[in-house]
Amino acid sequence: MALYLGIDGGGTGCRAAIADRAGRILARAEAGPANIASDPKGARDTIIGIVQGLLAGLGATEAAAVGLGLAGANAAGADLALQGALPARHVRIETDALTATLGALGDRDGIAAVIGTGAVFGRQQAGRFCQIGGHGLVLGDCASGAWLGRRALTQAVRADDGLVPMTPWLRDLLARFGGAAGIIGFAYAASPADFARLAPEVIAAADPDIMAEAEAEIMTAIATLQAGAALPVTFIGGLGEIYHNRLSGRLNTARPIGSALDGALRLAISTDRDAGPVRA
Amino acid sequence: MALYLGIDGGGTGCRAAIADRAGRILARAEAGPANIASDPKGARDTIIGIVQGLLAGLGATEAAAVGLGLAGANAAGADLALQGALPARHVRIETDALTATLGALGDRDGIAAVIGTGAVFGRQQAGRFCQIGGHGLVLGDCASGAWLGRRALTQAVRADDGLVPMTPWLRDLLARFGGAAGIIGFAYAASPADFARLAPEVIAAADPDIMAEAEAEIMTAIATLQAGAALPVTFIGGLGEIYHNRLSGRLNTARPIGSALDGALRLAISTDRDAGPVRA
Repeated sequence: MALYLGIDGGGTGCRAAIADRAGRILARAEAGPANIASDPKGARDTIIGIVQGLLAGLGATEAAAVGLGLAGANAAGADLALQGALPARHVRIETDALTATLGALGDRDGIAAVIGTGAVFGRQQAGRFCQIGGHGLVLGDCASGAWLGRRALTQAVRADDGLVPMTPWLRDLLARFGGAAGIIGFAYAASPADFARLAPEVIAAADPDIMAEAEAEIMTAIATLQAGAALPVTFIGGLGEIYHNRLSGRLNTARPIGSALDGALRLAISTDRDAGPVRA
Repeated sequence: MALYLGIDGGGTGCRAAIADRAGRILARAEAGPANIASDPKGARDTIIGIVQGLLAGLGATEAAAVGLGLAGANAAGADLALQGALPARHVRIETDALTATLGALGDRDGIAAVIGTGAVFGRQQAGRFCQIGGHGLVLGDCASGAWLGRRALTQAVRADDGLVPMTPWLRDLLARFGGAAGIIGFAYAASPADFARLAPEVIAAADPDIMAEAEAEIMTAIATLQAGAALPVTFIGGLGEIYHNRLSGRLNTARPIGSALDGALRLAISTDRDAGPVRA
């Protein structure tokens, strides 16, 4: 039986499934972070381990195709460590934006706003895919969980300096980190996932400066992708539900029909049929 | 003879001098980057090597005091690797902001805007010192060389996405890095010094968005430190002359009387006399 693996690898965790040619899922697995740009070796080891484990569980040694949607796959050279390292006849490595969009929209035209640890926006229109954002936390990812966490810590040290007003929430944040020095020390070593762990409290605190900046960025990205066409917007990712609720009054939204993992399986099966998605 | 060492360690390079009790410089040395928060081990090794080399050059094995002004010294725990590791009776580790301010202002009241790879602002008033900024590139350092370089790359990938207008300079920058994927890959691994190497071309390109953001941040920091008093502002650091020229029409400026290394020697000698600077 031909086996197809889909892998959805993000900055915080990695989800995988193995299916038959009809897309029926036979087994699932989960593992740690898999950003192939920020941690190429760690991501490679995680992904090879998960693929071998899923195949071995079904008594197989090779897949017909593996479809991977990975955070960081849009960085030059990021996929080099992985190409040729997987036991499959076909391997297609794409951004998590592409697989998330495929999974969320299926065959429909629309925009997927994929907002979890990172933030990226995909558009599917007449069978063609394009994405914007997903630049990583160093250059952007505005509105993402990592960005919200880092932005809160920046706001706290700026309030400590008197550059912006101090609030009870920022004072509490400073106290928990051991003051500005503690925050500065944390930030030197923190990963995007470390910053993203603060996102729930940032959203709960609802600092108007921070949330307005995040929402303005999302609206700009969507307007750029719509380019005048009123494509429906589907929010997904760990913060998808939150932004859906905050922004659905200003946008034509649609609910996702499947997950990024469904999109990765779709990518694997279509790649084996030589009918994978085309980038615009 | 009692020997005093001053060390000025920044994100791009480290300068050191050894002097007698009157402050007469007997020898100088230079070495690589010394940010004790972003690279504690590298900075420690660099600093120990430079101290031992300067002492050995004078046939000595111990200094009376070492005064260090180091980038990253405002991060919690950053100085732990260095305390006790230097052959001196007294060691005082301070931020590069403090030593740069001491060197630039001597005994005068005023504000030092220290803008090189990083950006930090020090105020000396009635014998007391305070600083704002210097949070590191992850959380801030707006207007610094590293910030300018990173901001330019962000602008380039955003222009590539259609989020901001494309300009000939940004198109050229994208081409030199191998497109957005090349920039994203570079940014995942780049140090502040790597980003800062782009600063001269960012200033030459004078993108109005970027320069306005940098200058607004500098003016806000200075206004916060002045708190109504019209203290003179001294621009120092690798970009000090550039910002002095751009902003002197809007500020009461003064020229520096000495370098950050002079400030570090002053710190060493005053610490041995138990008369070092006091933080507000």
